[in-house]
Amino acid sequence: MNEQKKIRIKAPATVANLVCGFDILGLALNEPEDIMEVTLTDTPGIRIRHTDGYDLPVEPEKNVAGAALIAFLEEARQNIGFDVSITKCIKPGSGLGSSAASSAGAVVAANQLIGNHFSNEDLVRFAMNGEKLASGVKHADNIAPCIYGGITLIRSIFPLDIISLSGPPLFVTVVHPQIEVRTSDARQILRKEVQLKDAIKQWGNIAGLVTGFLKQDYSLIGRSLEDVIIEPVRSILIPGFAEVKSKSKEAGALGGGISGSGPSIFMLSKEQNVALSVERLMQDVYKKIGVDFKTYVTTINYEGVRRQTD
Amino acid sequence: MNEQKKIRIKAPATVANLVCGFDILGLALNEPEDIMEVTLTDTPGIRIRHTDGYDLPVEPEKNVAGAALIAFLEEARQNIGFDVSITKCIKPGSGLGSSAASSAGAVVAANQLIGNHFSNEDLVRFAMNGEKLASGVKHADNIAPCIYGGITLIRSIFPLDIISLSGPPLFVTVVHPQIEVRTSDARQILRKEVQLKDAIKQWGNIAGLVTGFLKQDYSLIGRSLEDVIIEPVRSILIPGFAEVKSKSKEAGALGGGISGSGPSIFMLSKEQNVALSVERLMQDVYKKIGVDFKTYVTTINYEGVRRQTD
Repeated sequence: MNEQKKIRIKAPATVANLVCGFDILGLALNEPEDIMEVTLTDTPGIRIRHTDGYDLPVEPEKNVAGAALIAFLEEARQNIGFDVSITKCIKPGSGLGSSAASSAGAVVAANQLIGNHFSNEDLVRFAMNGEKLASGVKHADNIAPCIYGGITLIRSIFPLDIISLSGPPLFVTVVHPQIEVRTSDARQILRKEVQLKDAIKQWGNIAGLVTGFLKQDYSLIGRSLEDVIIEPVRSILIPGFAEVKSKSKEAGALGGGISGSGPSIFMLSKEQNVALSVERLMQDVYKKIGVDFKTYVTTINYEGVRRQTD
Repeated sequence: MNEQKKIRIKAPATVANLVCGFDILGLALNEPEDIMEVTLTDTPGIRIRHTDGYDLPVEPEKNVAGAALIAFLEEARQNIGFDVSITKCIKPGSGLGSSAASSAGAVVAANQLIGNHFSNEDLVRFAMNGEKLASGVKHADNIAPCIYGGITLIRSIFPLDIISLSGPPLFVTVVHPQIEVRTSDARQILRKEVQLKDAIKQWGNIAGLVTGFLKQDYSLIGRSLEDVIIEPVRSILIPGFAEVKSKSKEAGALGGGISGSGPSIFMLSKEQNVALSVERLMQDVYKKIGVDFKTYVTTINYEGVRRQTD
């Protein structure tokens, strides 16, 4: 089988929501990343293998990468199939876009194998089927940054309207306390109605955050990282949240909050030494509470899903 | 009395909300503008005179310019006073920031007369007292663009956080149908709670609009000019609104909506000829309905309140 017919890619973790941008903002991280190997075959159908220890379903219609590839193949209208091997390094249920990495990685790889027939926007559409399977909702705030890289704004889902935002150099510190928060549960505890006055605060902050990114204004980014609607409800599910947040800001972080629907917490910093201090204090908090955890100090991945060149 | 002690300024009309940015976005127009003459005096107190035909109160505590100057003098702590002469060209109750122009114009002029002692942010704080008097609420979405010029984002009112946004060249067509919509009434008909799903749509559009301005992306500006929360309620108060909006878009306008709390309607266009077509169709709509109106075809005023140099 020639080089063209098999590729290995890395699919990045992503932080959705970015505090005040519930369902519309996300960014891709340089770490952690899943590794996937996708082979184009003449045999129709999708065959999935997991080489990690997460015991995820491998039937295509029950696997998020499979669900994304089913949508891909429906539109590709070619008599082809894919063998997919997935090594997950982004733990499922971490709030770091684990399902999005699988779905997005699969369709980006598949698209490269058939000669980039589809646009990035098409790929987001296909991959959202994986998100639907994982959480019950077609959302793109992990998928879009995973495919486009960088910071992405999803102005609208129907019709899909994705805009890449530039931003200043940022360090991202992440802690994943090893407790389970289901995306579907995290959605259900949200109120269906919000106070207009809170919504106004929120959209002021979103406009501020986007402006801060585009103008590379660190102070404005920091001032805008405030969520008066989702965080007050969801943070209750994450022990240690308030302490991590307040201590991170004291340590000089610009701000941060829940990554996606949690339980991971992320903090943005201008300087690497601050990001490293934040990591240490996160470790201290969870050691004290007695919850297992994993931390990362990383930067924004501006490539998105990338071909592995090892 | 020397030149220093008396100045004439022009205070511009402003469009608050900008469709999806309720209470947080506004822009200043080159037309219409109020004309004000402010004289610094050794006699404490504020004396106001209106040279227009609008029969507005002239007692300082009942006049919006007076209310702003009272706040100004409290912090200036000088034994001074002001004589103010106001010629309003922005009709009160038009939704074009008439009260904001008076309040903002007065404090900008006063500040220049005492040697620019205060920052623009201070001036916004003082002028908001005029808005409180006019509408019962301290809002800054007319005051801020009036003082700063251009397009402004009010990320937060308490504490005040104003950010100037750049934007591409735009033509603004405005129609003021001569019906009365009180700001306080327009506020009261709004629901206190909104659906979370609508709020998400709204903040996607706000983020898109701000990005469109900063990236000078006309298409994105157009796609983002959508309001699913305020306009559906308030537009009921404005006869002809739906027709003006749909025909303006057909004519090539990027989009638009209610200016402030109405009844004026504004439309943004990339080209002047489109802006002029929009003016004609606005005229046709209100002639047909039989409501008196006034129209403007203008551009964004990037100076804000300016010294008159005639």
